[in-house]
Amino acid sequence: MAGSWMEEVRFGKDGLVPAIVQEGASGRVLMLGYMNREALELTATKGRVYFWSRSRGELWCKGETSGHVQRVMEIRLDCDGDAVLVRVEQEVAACHTGHQSCFFRGLEQGSWLELDPLVFDPEEVYGQGETG
Amino acid sequence: MAGSWMEEVRFGKDGLVPAIVQEGASGRVLMLGYMNREALELTATKGRVYFWSRSRGELWCKGETSGHVQRVMEIRLDCDGDAVLVRVEQEVAACHTGHQSCFFRGLEQGSWLELDPLVFDPEEVYGQGETG
Repeated sequence: MAGSWMEEVRFGKDGLVPAIVQEGASGRVLMLGYMNREALELTATKGRVYFWSRSRGELWCKGETSGHVQRVMEIRLDCDGDAVLVRVEQEVAACHTGHQSCFFRGLEQGSWLELDPLVFDPEEVYGQGETG
Repeated sequence: MAGSWMEEVRFGKDGLVPAIVQEGASGRVLMLGYMNREALELTATKGRVYFWSRSRGELWCKGETSGHVQRVMEIRLDCDGDAVLVRVEQEVAACHTGHQSCFFRGLEQGSWLELDPLVFDPEEVYGQGETG
């Protein structure tokens, strides 16, 4: 059972709270995911980051397929209680596309340009199927 | 009129996309807000960060009351196109509570503890009324 800290988290009508994942050492923002109560509870107790996948409709642990787990360093809550920040140690890279961060595109002169290099080959890691 | 880059942003059913704001120099995550098309378009063209306030139901420019504006350094989009990261130069501090970042509370031994100091007096800046 979760402690009273869970009551201070304001989940949306869909039962989810957005969770920003940041690499602790570099300060790099890696991804934005969504957590339901169970995912947040597991993240707080298991030392790995869990999300609720809105597209697949299931709980998942980041890295369960790829091995690219996120080890929890710190969990923070914002002033309104409706957003979470998790500082992590990232194994290899966060993005299923092979980039370190999911935010690898930047707006330059009216286009989204790929600004960051690939750090792994996604086909090798994920094959043709799952991501995560 | 927005360029075709806007078409690659996947706004939710509510017409909004979550936008993480990060201080460029320090790498600190300052806040999470929501943007509609107009807010994102203004952020891209005006050099200041704009949001759609879900609670007030209106467009706002961060700093319009407090003067604590966020100057846009870079706008990034994630792999799925459904989250935005804005790196900024933050005037004074981001949080209406007087903290540098809205994520000033951390989970420690089952409680949210205030981990960061106040950097300004919110009553002095906002008075009794507005925030922003």
